[in-house]
Amino acid sequence: MPFDLVIKNGTIVTAVSTIQTDVAIQGDKIAAIGNSLQGTNEIDAYGKLVIPGGVDIHVHLEMPIGKFTSTDDFYSGTRAAALGGTTTIIDFVEAKPEQPLLEAYLERQTLAKSKSVIDFGLHMTITPTDIPKLEQLPEVAEAGCKTYKLYMAYGHRLTDDALYKAFQAIKKVNGLPVIHAENWDIICALIEENVANGRVSPHWHSRSRPEEFEAESVHRVIKIAERVGLPIHIFHVSCDAVVQEIQAARAKGIPVTGETCPQYLFLSQELYDRPGVDGTLPVCSPPLRPKPENDKLWHALANNDLQIVSTDHCPFTKEEKATGLNDFSQIPGGVPSIEMRFASVYQGVVNGRLSLNQWVNLCATAPAKLTGFHNKGHIGVGYDADIVVFDPNLEKTISSQTLHETAGWTPYEGLLLKGWPKTTIVRGKILNLE
Amino acid sequence: MPFDLVIKNGTIVTAVSTIQTDVAIQGDKIAAIGNSLQGTNEIDAYGKLVIPGGVDIHVHLEMPIGKFTSTDDFYSGTRAAALGGTTTIIDFVEAKPEQPLLEAYLERQTLAKSKSVIDFGLHMTITPTDIPKLEQLPEVAEAGCKTYKLYMAYGHRLTDDALYKAFQAIKKVNGLPVIHAENWDIICALIEENVANGRVSPHWHSRSRPEEFEAESVHRVIKIAERVGLPIHIFHVSCDAVVQEIQAARAKGIPVTGETCPQYLFLSQELYDRPGVDGTLPVCSPPLRPKPENDKLWHALANNDLQIVSTDHCPFTKEEKATGLNDFSQIPGGVPSIEMRFASVYQGVVNGRLSLNQWVNLCATAPAKLTGFHNKGHIGVGYDADIVVFDPNLEKTISSQTLHETAGWTPYEGLLLKGWPKTTIVRGKILNLE
Amino acid sequence: MPFDLVIKNGTIVTAVSTIQTDVAIQGDKIAAIGNSLQGTNEIDAYGKLVIPGGVDIHVHLEMPIGKFTSTDDFYSGTRAAALGGTTTIIDFVEAKPEQPLLEAYLERQTLAKSKSVIDFGLHMTITPTDIPKLEQLPEVAEAGCKTYKLYMAYGHRLTDDALYKAFQAIKKVNGLPVIHAENWDIICALIEENVANGRVSPHWHSRSRPEEFEAESVHRVIKIAERVGLPIHIFHVSCDAVVQEIQAARAKGIPVTGETCPQYLFLSQELYDRPGVDGTLPVCSPPLRPKPENDKLWHALANNDLQIVSTDHCPFTKEEKATGLNDFSQIPGGVPSIEMRFASVYQGVVNGRLSLNQWVNLCATAPAKLTGFHNKGHIGVGYDADIVVFDPNLEKTISSQTLHETAGWTPYEGLLLKGWPKTTIVRGKILNLE
Amino acid sequence: MPFDLVIKNGTIVTAVSTIQTDVAIQGDKIAAIGNSLQGTNEIDAYGKLVIPGGVDIHVHLEMPIGKFTSTDDFYSGTRAAALGGTTTIIDFVEAKPEQPLLEAYLERQTLAKSKSVIDFGLHMTITPTDIPKLEQLPEVAEAGCKTYKLYMAYGHRLTDDALYKAFQAIKKVNGLPVIHAENWDIICALIEENVANGRVSPHWHSRSRPEEFEAESVHRVIKIAERVGLPIHIFHVSCDAVVQEIQAARAKGIPVTGETCPQYLFLSQELYDRPGVDGTLPVCSPPLRPKPENDKLWHALANNDLQIVSTDHCPFTKEEKATGLNDFSQIPGGVPSIEMRFASVYQGVVNGRLSLNQWVNLCATAPAKLTGFHNKGHIGVGYDADIVVFDPNLEKTISSQTLHETAGWTPYEGLLLKGWPKTTIVRGKILNLE
Repeated sequence: MPFDLVIKNGTIVTAVSTIQTDVAIQGDKIAAIGNSLQGTNEIDAYGKLVIPGGVDIHVHLEMPIGKFTSTDDFYSGTRAAALGGTTTIIDFVEAKPEQPLLEAYLERQTLAKSKSVIDFGLHMTITPTDIPKLEQLPEVAEAGCKTYKLYMAYGHRLTDDALYKAFQAIKKVNGLPVIHAENWDIICALIEENVANGRVSPHWHSRSRPEEFEAESVHRVIKIAERVGLPIHIFHVSCDAVVQEIQAARAKGIPVTGETCPQYLFLSQELYDRPGVDGTLPVCSPPLRPKPENDKLWHALANNDLQIVSTDHCPFTKEEKATGLNDFSQIPGGVPSIEMRFASVYQGVVNGRLSLNQWVNLCATAPAKLTGFHNKGHIGVGYDADIVVFDPNLEKTISSQTLHETAGWTPYEGLLLKGWPKTTIVRGKILNLE
Repeated sequence: MPFDLVIKNGTIVTAVSTIQTDVAIQGDKIAAIGNSLQGTNEIDAYGKLVIPGGVDIHVHLEMPIGKFTSTDDFYSGTRAAALGGTTTIIDFVEAKPEQPLLEAYLERQTLAKSKSVIDFGLHMTITPTDIPKLEQLPEVAEAGCKTYKLYMAYGHRLTDDALYKAFQAIKKVNGLPVIHAENWDIICALIEENVANGRVSPHWHSRSRPEEFEAESVHRVIKIAERVGLPIHIFHVSCDAVVQEIQAARAKGIPVTGETCPQYLFLSQELYDRPGVDGTLPVCSPPLRPKPENDKLWHALANNDLQIVSTDHCPFTKEEKATGLNDFSQIPGGVPSIEMRFASVYQGVVNGRLSLNQWVNLCATAPAKLTGFHNKGHIGVGYDADIVVFDPNLEKTISSQTLHETAGWTPYEGLLLKGWPKTTIVRGKILNLE
Repeated sequence: MPFDLVIKNGTIVTAVSTIQTDVAIQGDKIAAIGNSLQGTNEIDAYGKLVIPGGVDIHVHLEMPIGKFTSTDDFYSGTRAAALGGTTTIIDFVEAKPEQPLLEAYLERQTLAKSKSVIDFGLHMTITPTDIPKLEQLPEVAEAGCKTYKLYMAYGHRLTDDALYKAFQAIKKVNGLPVIHAENWDIICALIEENVANGRVSPHWHSRSRPEEFEAESVHRVIKIAERVGLPIHIFHVSCDAVVQEIQAARAKGIPVTGETCPQYLFLSQELYDRPGVDGTLPVCSPPLRPKPENDKLWHALANNDLQIVSTDHCPFTKEEKATGLNDFSQIPGGVPSIEMRFASVYQGVVNGRLSLNQWVNLCATAPAKLTGFHNKGHIGVGYDADIVVFDPNLEKTISSQTLHETAGWTPYEGLLLKGWPKTTIVRGKILNLE
Repeated sequence: MPFDLVIKNGTIVTAVSTIQTDVAIQGDKIAAIGNSLQGTNEIDAYGKLVIPGGVDIHVHLEMPIGKFTSTDDFYSGTRAAALGGTTTIIDFVEAKPEQPLLEAYLERQTLAKSKSVIDFGLHMTITPTDIPKLEQLPEVAEAGCKTYKLYMAYGHRLTDDALYKAFQAIKKVNGLPVIHAENWDIICALIEENVANGRVSPHWHSRSRPEEFEAESVHRVIKIAERVGLPIHIFHVSCDAVVQEIQAARAKGIPVTGETCPQYLFLSQELYDRPGVDGTLPVCSPPLRPKPENDKLWHALANNDLQIVSTDHCPFTKEEKATGLNDFSQIPGGVPSIEMRFASVYQGVVNGRLSLNQWVNLCATAPAKLTGFHNKGHIGVGYDADIVVFDPNLEKTISSQTLHETAGWTPYEGLLLKGWPKTTIVRGKILNLE
């Protein structure tokens, strides 16, 4: 009896092995792995890599931030993700001050479900006004929420006591805190100092958010987590100073993990010196760093000092970015990369920094495991049939013209990538979204 | 068309996933993974773990050492290994001073092949008399040798310049040095000092081989390998001081791996204070350490600071051990554990220190990958059908009466293990060796 | 022409040398060092140590703290100090919210001058309400203020941005920040948690102010100082976790110094478990730590990882302490040691941990240099004639009956000290205060 | 009654203080320090620094090394030292294989005494042939030997067991081992490799003695000393990798000290690329390092990670150097600096890296204390009257024409130094040697 769909003769790459054989799908699950499997429908993957669909645990779709809303909605964003080989994302939800957490969670879930073409999860953000609501966490956890976003920066940053209390509540529901770690007090003092001295161009964005205070915050939040006794995950590591803190903690057996993003692997702070609106576009937080940090982060990925690559995809239009031209602190922060993430990390394989297995682990297996998507991120029998056929020889020059993101620009314009997804299968269905 | 053999309904554990489904074998290979597979022959593994056969990369079978020869030969040793769930071993070969390396390699290979019931490899030992023969390495490598044993202790220890030269030659053949790291000069001075002062009981064995000089040697050999630019593997790490050195090197991206052995996870140096011959039995090198080191080594395994558990299985009889009763430095060194290794490390799963996946990785996947057995150590289509059906609920009290090793004693007598192999399959054949 | 006063035949101990000879004083200065000096007045110091008068840079005299005022006033406190061999203290001044800094400084100076029997200085405390007054710092500096106290704990703690701004202002006047480093947010969360759970006895005082968050605060404040680029001094280091942070920073060349106090060298947290008011008496912040920390701090002094021993002398009466019997967070914090400091550190010489020179350096030379008392803390020609004749053989059992402090109790009751000051000379005058 | 000699109105700089006053000398001792002292003989030192005579604990005078003998004899060498402000040196003695240690010691002492114009000491070298003579150490110690030179490099290097035994014997006589630490086995392998490949120019000298193996040897010898439990001193630290090892050991409280030399502070390995004999001249061991190491060593001095600056003065003539033009391994190793050391380190004061007190400590006080010259290296009453009047404004351009060393060349030719000794007093006598 033939399977519903068989991917034939591809090279199946998982986090642990590289095998040339067939994968069979029945319904929405992987049903068999072996030679000469037969399907009602068959895809010839000879010469291609057959990999688990990517898992991007850090995206912001149609997210209201200050005056603006990030440009991609759950449709355009998940479509671009899928075309880039990502089959699961995790976005965010934030309750209003008086709103019950569960209500906010379900509202956002309904919105996301109505437009998303791939699977998704939501990080529940815990803001200062949510601290009195921490006893509501079990309800949210029961509704399926596994991960909780805590900010150490911006207006809704949590002070150390609030972090401590939030960690205790999250621990009770076996949740995982995911952390934006920067020292907001210091950043505010530096912004104030720079603006007061007329240093308002985007150049000063990165100079107002120093590497050593990103590291300081990570040091501090790890101590708090260690005290409470729960694992934490550090978002968007931008520099080696932070890697050192994570590495030191892990060496002591403290369960902390770290992610970086394409912008910290490919871009650097010189971009802020571009004239006009171009200098504002790559503003994101933590900021881009000096060029040598790129290399150190690649090394951290290869050495398992960082475990995950996500995107922090959060694009704004040029017009929105331009509103901060005369005051860097007013530029809406965020860059797009939801579509090119999987292929971008593959460049590490091309240049010999990463093995095929490490690549798959960083982009799919590790993020799925960490965030509780135990049926995703791997090609194994019984797993969700989220699979990408990846052509290692397809060359693609990144351009906002051909990407499916909606910001209208990309910081990677002109970047040549070797390797790109050819077919994306979500829960057993071949996506056709071009 | 049915497969030759199908293992049905077991829980397949690999280094990366845990799935309940079937595994099919055709000939000597794994042919398919999936539900409802059919075989001419079928094993019901419901409630059992289906794991890759163990890979023990450090055993000494019928090995002449000084006046004695280790008690297990290639038959009894590999049979005991198989009954304990190990389907691949790596033993050693040493050329005589005038003998060509390849000749020695082939001789030992022939001997091993004539008796072994499982697959095997050989580490080519490079002794001081082999340094002038280093240009013969390509021949040995071509004959299939991947790994080279270098001693920093004992009469045939290599001085730093010899290590340097050996590393250069091994690098040229893409080989991997495996290292016995102790500071032989210091050990000799301490033995001399202790014996001269009448401190001759086994108690002084561990006091003559201090932890800090095991660590010093590892520090040194890593520097030499870093200079030459090749990966190395540290054998039988006995204590946390060595873990620290390995961890520090790996943090810098230096490709060094480390193994420990059951004796360093379960036993401690108080055993040397047992009266009479009993105190001599657990003499091995590096020696057993203070009890708290056991815990630290378990932690190192959980934290991926050590990557492999092998045995250094090298038993001698009580009579042979007793010859050193009045001079610890004359006791033939080595303890048996070839049969209980896989189950012993499973205790880490039982008590929550290790995940099932880590356990399989430590005992099978990682050692296979490291030593070039790319078709072994994993349950994946196309891999050798070396598979163990492991019963997680079977309790076994270790006793030399019931083990299949031939030393006539075991340092683990009376140790209760939870979990034991039920069926071992080697290249598709169910072994029946009881 | 004879000198005013000559100390004859003593062993002169400085931070760098130990010499048996005479010291001559003319007026209030040291005028000569040499053999056979003649004085109108002569003291025979044969068999005694002639040392620079102690410099205690951390005392709180008649200091209003919450509802109470520390028991010793500038007379009783400086008298007790002098009788213990200390000839210079530094106390604190805090401006009221609307008060100009200089006004507060001069007021407190006048008060201190009216009662003090030895020389003194004042640390200007910078509270949150002083941040808008930072432009007044040059006035205070011109009036002689060299050091500025910044709290990271208590109601008037400074947040990181305020620390940053204060550091910038202090740097401009070449001042030195002296820091109370604890993580106040975490302490508040732990106090709240403990009190809410009925854990109100003094036992919970130390459990609410964990070592690792004292260390975290030190880590953080060093980063801020490094950013601004000025030296800082860490007050009352209570544990090795903090020593590690200071040591690591100093190893990188960051100019940070640390002090500890007798309470952290001699006492430990078991004292909080004494019944009734006795458990409240040793409450101070940072709190006493587990016993093994005492040893580690002695080691840090010997190893120059901490550079200074001061007292943080801040006594309250038993009645005042007792007001917190049912809520440890309400106990006024502080213990007395102003009189026994110099002799207590001498015990390190007695038991071989410190050299004579290190002892003098820790208690006199280093604190004088650090805080700008360049004419004090050393026996050299031209220095202020602040000199102590110390009898190394005099044994003294500490008792509140015989001490000259006014708290009416001492945590060192019954402690036997070997060595005690015999004569104290302040600016050339022999004090007679018994 | 006037003193024999009074140095008037100078600025007396010691390791701990800086005072403007007079110093009086009676016989060969410092007799008084104070204002308005009167002397039969007086020197006006107004505007000058009055400092303790330098102590250079690492010189090789008329020392036979291989085919050659270092050019300066005990007269020319000590005269040059004195003219550069050094009033005490320590040289070396080595016994012949069959010669009793004491005999060699006394012979060398007699030779030195017959020619030396300043005080001196001798390090007793312990060679492999001296290991059986270790029981003679108490005789040598009784004759006044405090320090013992152990080589880890060259033909007479000690292996680790010999180091261990030598340390035990030195500990018994309360001696101090002073260590030449390099990994001789690795050096030999690298020299062999380089020479075999025709890489024979001086360029390859530094490439054959890598920094990381200087560090490795230091790591190793510290471990051995820690085991035996005695302090050690590391000679001629050439690079930061070694500083790191010393710093890490000191942080743990292990009593290890380190020295560097002018060549490692001012010169770098590019000099080996000079054509002809010029490239051979700066050959010394450890070799000169890349330029950035200079800075790191200055930092180590400022941070007290290294404690002493000596010279390792060991000059050979250009003719002797030239004998190794075609094989760097045959170049006699060593450079001169005995005359310019004190002034060279003063440049650290000039450029703000070091305080005056640190400078005096590094060049005089610390080396005297470490090696048991307790009456030297300090300006204090009762100390030997070894004093230098140093003119901080005198500028001197180094040239072999004007130096009093006899090699006929200097690697510092043309170096402009600010500050130079004006008068040198040895045991109360003003030297007049120009």
